[in-house]
Amino acid sequence: MLDETAKGVFTIACTPFRPDGALDLSSVDSMVDFYVEKGATGLTILGIMGEAGKLSAAESGDVIKRVIARTDLPVIVGVSAAGFAPMQALAAKAMDAGAAGVMVAAPHTLKTDDQIIGYFHNVAETLGDAPWVLQDFPLVTEVTIPTKVILKVMEDCPTCVMLKHEDWPGLDKITDLRAASDTGARRISILCGNGGQFLLEEMLRGADGAMTGFAYPEMMADVVNAYNRGHEERARDIFDAYLPLIRYECQPGLGLAIRKHTLAQRGAIAHATVRKPGPKLSDATVSEIAVLVERQEARLKALG
Amino acid sequence: MLDETAKGVFTIACTPFRPDGALDLSSVDSMVDFYVEKGATGLTILGIMGEAGKLSAAESGDVIKRVIARTDLPVIVGVSAAGFAPMQALAAKAMDAGAAGVMVAAPHTLKTDDQIIGYFHNVAETLGDAPWVLQDFPLVTEVTIPTKVILKVMEDCPTCVMLKHEDWPGLDKITDLRAASDTGARRISILCGNGGQFLLEEMLRGADGAMTGFAYPEMMADVVNAYNRGHEERARDIFDAYLPLIRYECQPGLGLAIRKHTLAQRGAIAHATVRKPGPKLSDATVSEIAVLVERQEARLKALG
Amino acid sequence: MLDETAKGVFTIACTPFRPDGALDLSSVDSMVDFYVEKGATGLTILGIMGEAGKLSAAESGDVIKRVIARTDLPVIVGVSAAGFAPMQALAAKAMDAGAAGVMVAAPHTLKTDDQIIGYFHNVAETLGDAPWVLQDFPLVTEVTIPTKVILKVMEDCPTCVMLKHEDWPGLDKITDLRAASDTGARRISILCGNGGQFLLEEMLRGADGAMTGFAYPEMMADVVNAYNRGHEERARDIFDAYLPLIRYECQPGLGLAIRKHTLAQRGAIAHATVRKPGPKLSDATVSEIAVLVERQEARLKALG
Amino acid sequence: MLDETAKGVFTIACTPFRPDGALDLSSVDSMVDFYVEKGATGLTILGIMGEAGKLSAAESGDVIKRVIARTDLPVIVGVSAAGFAPMQALAAKAMDAGAAGVMVAAPHTLKTDDQIIGYFHNVAETLGDAPWVLQDFPLVTEVTIPTKVILKVMEDCPTCVMLKHEDWPGLDKITDLRAASDTGARRISILCGNGGQFLLEEMLRGADGAMTGFAYPEMMADVVNAYNRGHEERARDIFDAYLPLIRYECQPGLGLAIRKHTLAQRGAIAHATVRKPGPKLSDATVSEIAVLVERQEARLKALG
Repeated sequence: MLDETAKGVFTIACTPFRPDGALDLSSVDSMVDFYVEKGATGLTILGIMGEAGKLSAAESGDVIKRVIARTDLPVIVGVSAAGFAPMQALAAKAMDAGAAGVMVAAPHTLKTDDQIIGYFHNVAETLGDAPWVLQDFPLVTEVTIPTKVILKVMEDCPTCVMLKHEDWPGLDKITDLRAASDTGARRISILCGNGGQFLLEEMLRGADGAMTGFAYPEMMADVVNAYNRGHEERARDIFDAYLPLIRYECQPGLGLAIRKHTLAQRGAIAHATVRKPGPKLSDATVSEIAVLVERQEARLKALG
Repeated sequence: MLDETAKGVFTIACTPFRPDGALDLSSVDSMVDFYVEKGATGLTILGIMGEAGKLSAAESGDVIKRVIARTDLPVIVGVSAAGFAPMQALAAKAMDAGAAGVMVAAPHTLKTDDQIIGYFHNVAETLGDAPWVLQDFPLVTEVTIPTKVILKVMEDCPTCVMLKHEDWPGLDKITDLRAASDTGARRISILCGNGGQFLLEEMLRGADGAMTGFAYPEMMADVVNAYNRGHEERARDIFDAYLPLIRYECQPGLGLAIRKHTLAQRGAIAHATVRKPGPKLSDATVSEIAVLVERQEARLKALG
Repeated sequence: MLDETAKGVFTIACTPFRPDGALDLSSVDSMVDFYVEKGATGLTILGIMGEAGKLSAAESGDVIKRVIARTDLPVIVGVSAAGFAPMQALAAKAMDAGAAGVMVAAPHTLKTDDQIIGYFHNVAETLGDAPWVLQDFPLVTEVTIPTKVILKVMEDCPTCVMLKHEDWPGLDKITDLRAASDTGARRISILCGNGGQFLLEEMLRGADGAMTGFAYPEMMADVVNAYNRGHEERARDIFDAYLPLIRYECQPGLGLAIRKHTLAQRGAIAHATVRKPGPKLSDATVSEIAVLVERQEARLKALG
Repeated sequence: MLDETAKGVFTIACTPFRPDGALDLSSVDSMVDFYVEKGATGLTILGIMGEAGKLSAAESGDVIKRVIARTDLPVIVGVSAAGFAPMQALAAKAMDAGAAGVMVAAPHTLKTDDQIIGYFHNVAETLGDAPWVLQDFPLVTEVTIPTKVILKVMEDCPTCVMLKHEDWPGLDKITDLRAASDTGARRISILCGNGGQFLLEEMLRGADGAMTGFAYPEMMADVVNAYNRGHEERARDIFDAYLPLIRYECQPGLGLAIRKHTLAQRGAIAHATVRKPGPKLSDATVSEIAVLVERQEARLKALG
């Protein structure tokens, strides 16, 4: 079961589809193998980038079972929903199937500090014993969660064991949370998202690793490992080599399509299909990715 | 099956819960009977005010079956969803159970005219043969749909047979849509929501009736019938008698709780419970409703 | 100077324009006379409904001077601005001209409780000695201000002497604020907006009056006066007589044009012009207003 | 006067303040000299990153005059405003002072295609003969402008001579606009913002240069010049060397403070002050910038 000591790289898994939009379960297997091989210490499925909202309840169940059957790594399942009954149903399905925990983001209707706290109280009550991750992603949810609200949720809800941090800008939030746990607050795991754009600085501020789905998951593993071994310059060199592509993948609305394209090119999944409604890559975009990958490989080679 | 000739009053049904939040299926029966007795010509279930997002997939299915089993009136089922696979799954469940049609609102991510048109093209493709209602509710969806976009959807999607109109202000939109159908565009049914606040003017502009859930559905029936029989002054008198309560029920965020309170007072449902997250009425609010209802009854009595 | 004892009806004044969009200063005079005659105890100018954002700095100054020169009633000037320097410049101009106080709404960029508190701290510092009104209008500003945040601002900022209340639903907020002042918090003036839609209930909850611009300001005066003399039923009868038009005027986006049309019909201003970007009333809308006014007059006559 | 042939680098100028928040006009001089020295072919002042909304009308005028007096480069002045009267007043002040043109963004109230087109028609009418730039910046304005709407504005408004492109993702929009001008549409200048994050790809798609305020403006000049001379690999090498800092500066809400800090470090302005409401950099942030700058210098030196 997931707990506050989780660290490393929890890769945000995509959900593979066939060109006709049907679920591609055999690509689930190859994708899981790929993530494991590239250094993941855990997987997160059915998140925003996992196109969770586009799956029927039956399909969600199929993906959960298939992923968990394929790996011994801890698996976190996104269960954000418009209400607590569907959240409970999906969380039960996930935990019964062997998930290590679940993840919940704030719905965009929340406005005030107390509304946010009240919502996560309800979440904790709904989830019962299941360990859960609070996903803090204002750019998508439109909900800004102040540090003190996170600390209050941590204090009130012992089953909340991790923050998926993707506030932006959010580096000082990590610093503030770590200062709080250094002076008595419960210390939870902080894994960072945002496509990895700030991974090095996030580690410096006190993060425990990454939870994001950049199509070269070895970047996250290599940066985190180099940093943890005390090789900060090496970690920066690796990060900088990948940065042009990281940046390119972080285009809102287009990022998932770029990520799936790259994963398909690398053989992790059979098809780059994004379910409707979703973008298709233009030829110019595909060419730009190819150039970035080529330069990335050259630079990594030069780094040794 | 629902078609362009639908008219009268399609009552937006609430979803009854017990005080502990569990689904209250026996209240579904009494509520349906109540709506029929008060003059509904159809029912719409699992809409925004039906707390659809707070139901699990299994619960949604139970509500659909229970309602349809209880009445011969046409039943429209809200199937708005974050993706087309869950929309398709729910629509299939509804149509298989005997629904007359389904209803879809625009997700708040849509911005441009072409994005809206493209989305409803996908909706029509997803729903296949099922007749469907386009719900136009900008105050909640944050999507403004211009008249010309509605006309384009109507032109391209013959299975779209009705507009649930609750743009606000939206009276001129009805006028413009009717002007278009008078000069060659396909004429669809227009039923109006917004809690009934503009029902009289909506009829004058060319609406075919109401689709809303004001806790006195006989208001909608009486106003529409009086208007249709040519008794406009009588229709206005009835409307004005109910207006203080209509207004009070139309408080964003609080309206559903007021509506359920009134329905429970009237015996339509056993409990006024709104599922979390949702508001509770203060004592002052409950008193204010009582005064409004008392004056309403006196005024209706005076009208004869 | 404005203080916490302010009560009655502060009419939200419109800004009159000529058909070509130029400022119509002679209509400012007739409009002020009209408001005074209809029972205003104060005026509020350059608010959201005063098209403040559409005026140049020079025009704003002209309006302020003209209004204040015409009346002995206290005048509040809206000074919301994108930054504190322009806010300070406008507030200085207003206070120098003899305004009784100024009014500020929250900018839509504010999200968390602390951001809102911090903003109003800056406002108080910017305004110096000038008494000011906190305008709480979430439907337009997109900022939800919890009761405890208002109380904190009241505690920290003694120059804040009034709340312009137009949260919606917001009746319980009035109750909560009055409960707080009954148990030790500073009691400020609460005047209510929202077009007057909830005036009776607002008075019952503890408001001191109205601050809104409904085109029949005598409604606010008569309701508040009847209520204050203990004639609640009489107050309700008057309110209900005006309610069909109140409701019609409260159409977002269209309301100001309806209000100016009615004010022009009543001779308060010479032209109904709304400055661009702004709506024009359709013929159908103009006809609907005429019918509502006719019925309103008949009903008021019947009331005596 | 600005026309469709503008190209190169129009640096987005910040507005310098003293530590007490007062305007720092002597830093305006040093800043202009700095931008000129680093390769700017034009300047853009009083944009979003120029804290335009925080200036009083008098201060705006002072900044405009000071900048224009200091340089012969064409100067574009941001004149976005809540209404057309203040827009006209500011544009007149700018053009009278010798500006080359003005720039306007869409207000966040615009929703539909026709509303956007109508708004810019009004803008063109308001601005008269002044050449103007359409700023397309959805991340801040919340207004998504489809390519066909831009083309319609270009067709209808000959005084619109430039697009400040900072849609994100927006590369295909450049491609589409250039495809349109290749087949008959008027070709306007496209300069790109977004902090320079996609500058290389933007040039490849057909942009004419950059309009952004990254604190190392020589990056934009060197990349654009290398690209224009046909040295794409060289352009990429330069870009990649700056990318870690570009990325760090592109933190929403924090970016301007980072930029001003760096400009102050480089001696372009005397103080890093951002006017309230605005962020202050934490010590950790300042340290992170220092490391990034050090590595950037090493890498540029290695490039030669």
